[in-house]
Amino acid sequence: MSLLTVGSVAFDALETPYGKTDKIIGGAATYATLAASYFTKANNLVAVVGDDFPQSMIDLLETQGVNTEGLEIRKGEKTFFWSGRYHENMNSRDTVEVQLNVMGDFNPKIPDSYQGATYLLLGNTSPEIQKMVLDRLATRPRLVVLDTMNLWIDIALDSLKTVLKEVDLLTINDEEARLLSGEYSLRKAAKKILTMGPKTLIIKKGEHGALLFHRDEVFFAPALPLEEVFDPTGAGDSFAGGFIGYLARTDDISFENLKRALIYGSVMASFCVEKFGVERLVGLSETEINERLAEFVKLAIFKVD
Amino acid sequence: MSLLTVGSVAFDALETPYGKTDKIIGGAATYATLAASYFTKANNLVAVVGDDFPQSMIDLLETQGVNTEGLEIRKGEKTFFWSGRYHENMNSRDTVEVQLNVMGDFNPKIPDSYQGATYLLLGNTSPEIQKMVLDRLATRPRLVVLDTMNLWIDIALDSLKTVLKEVDLLTINDEEARLLSGEYSLRKAAKKILTMGPKTLIIKKGEHGALLFHRDEVFFAPALPLEEVFDPTGAGDSFAGGFIGYLARTDDISFENLKRALIYGSVMASFCVEKFGVERLVGLSETEINERLAEFVKLAIFKVD
Repeated sequence: MSLLTVGSVAFDALETPYGKTDKIIGGAATYATLAASYFTKANNLVAVVGDDFPQSMIDLLETQGVNTEGLEIRKGEKTFFWSGRYHENMNSRDTVEVQLNVMGDFNPKIPDSYQGATYLLLGNTSPEIQKMVLDRLATRPRLVVLDTMNLWIDIALDSLKTVLKEVDLLTINDEEARLLSGEYSLRKAAKKILTMGPKTLIIKKGEHGALLFHRDEVFFAPALPLEEVFDPTGAGDSFAGGFIGYLARTDDISFENLKRALIYGSVMASFCVEKFGVERLVGLSETEINERLAEFVKLAIFKVD
Repeated sequence: MSLLTVGSVAFDALETPYGKTDKIIGGAATYATLAASYFTKANNLVAVVGDDFPQSMIDLLETQGVNTEGLEIRKGEKTFFWSGRYHENMNSRDTVEVQLNVMGDFNPKIPDSYQGATYLLLGNTSPEIQKMVLDRLATRPRLVVLDTMNLWIDIALDSLKTVLKEVDLLTINDEEARLLSGEYSLRKAAKKILTMGPKTLIIKKGEHGALLFHRDEVFFAPALPLEEVFDPTGAGDSFAGGFIGYLARTDDISFENLKRALIYGSVMASFCVEKFGVERLVGLSETEINERLAEFVKLAIFKVD
């Protein structure tokens, strides 16, 4: 089944306790489509960059099987730029600088060839843009997944609530779930959020794994404890890409399969953090992915009498 | 198989966002033996209290099947007292007051009838006291589990390292694992700690579950996401008690069975936090425990193709 991902393609500059990068390729949709590329060949990207964005990177996305027909390149403009610094514990970070550039008036254009997408990932952009994408699709996808962040809960709550009504599955982190619901307990937060539109909710807890809520059901996918986390940037987006990519491949949105998808999402996130930027998400072999999956099985599975 | 637990029996005074208690019954060994009582009938306690400790509570322990022959009651002295205040998020707390009282010179006496214990839980006391207990056992237990805390890592590191050499399994929380190893990554921390004596390590992460390390193997037990955590006091001790109680019942220390024991420990911890103090650990039915276990299975188990 075909997957459509809409979101940011960007330059990032990062500083972690392990080192520093100049401008490298980042953006939620970059991480997500790269992660999804291991699961689906119909992997369509809608994003916008400036003409400072290197052709080599577009070629790399294409080589990984990402369809960049919907990647708009704006002449004379600059690509979205974010720079951040991670704290010693790698769990929190400060934004050092943001230059919206082309993202300031992102007007997502859906190529005709993308119409009929069955799986849609609305990456973290403003709720207005996310709504625009939904309105521009001729047919409603089978599953609409939306990612958002605290910024939009703070400054665009009404718009967010409007678009949430049209969404099947929301992914946010624990802090954002608390902010959106006003509840500290994640179980209570999930209950409230599941009345806002989405029938399914994923709460991402970073190195502490992710929770999947649907009706009264709850499932937990652990994060793999790694010897070294080099760069957590994009982990949540790789998670989302692996998750929806697996769903697009299997075309099964039963709770049992959502659980599997959550594990595949965690697998992709565990690769992402092992190197700076998107480096580890390029050129992974099927064997590497299967071996990593086996590590998750060993980590989580037990038998009771 | 018989279980011996040595540790504190105490008075606690607690303040959580849900309410406040006057002096109630607490102490690591109280929580641990109550949790273990659902798994083993040979549940022997060594601890010390003052004559201010209510006989009704000793009767309650006995009714739950805890053998209190090794509970020393010191005439004219007072029971160990701890008071603490939990922060809004329930994950961190401040110690408001500590009165060591009888714990100041705790000299653990092992009744003859306790000799030959096959499972030993050295609850969190000073490493010197923990070593004393080991020296006073005529035969070495099949499995020695030691719990400790940041205080002893800070002020008695040499003694702690000495006793660790004689221990099979160490349980500590994530912060303590980092303090003891000097490593931030829990995987690296575990590697270092497993060279200090214990062949197996459990790192408790509170609401984020627990990790079990043994050689190159790692297993993760999630914590159950609860609607309300009333009082986290004793969760770690209930976890340890459920863990070792299950091992004493099954007398199987294979890695597969340690994994199951970790889940049973998590089951007991999930009950503990639902009410103030030890209230929820008294009078649980087998059905309640099995239903809670089933919730953990639903939470954690997935099938890959």
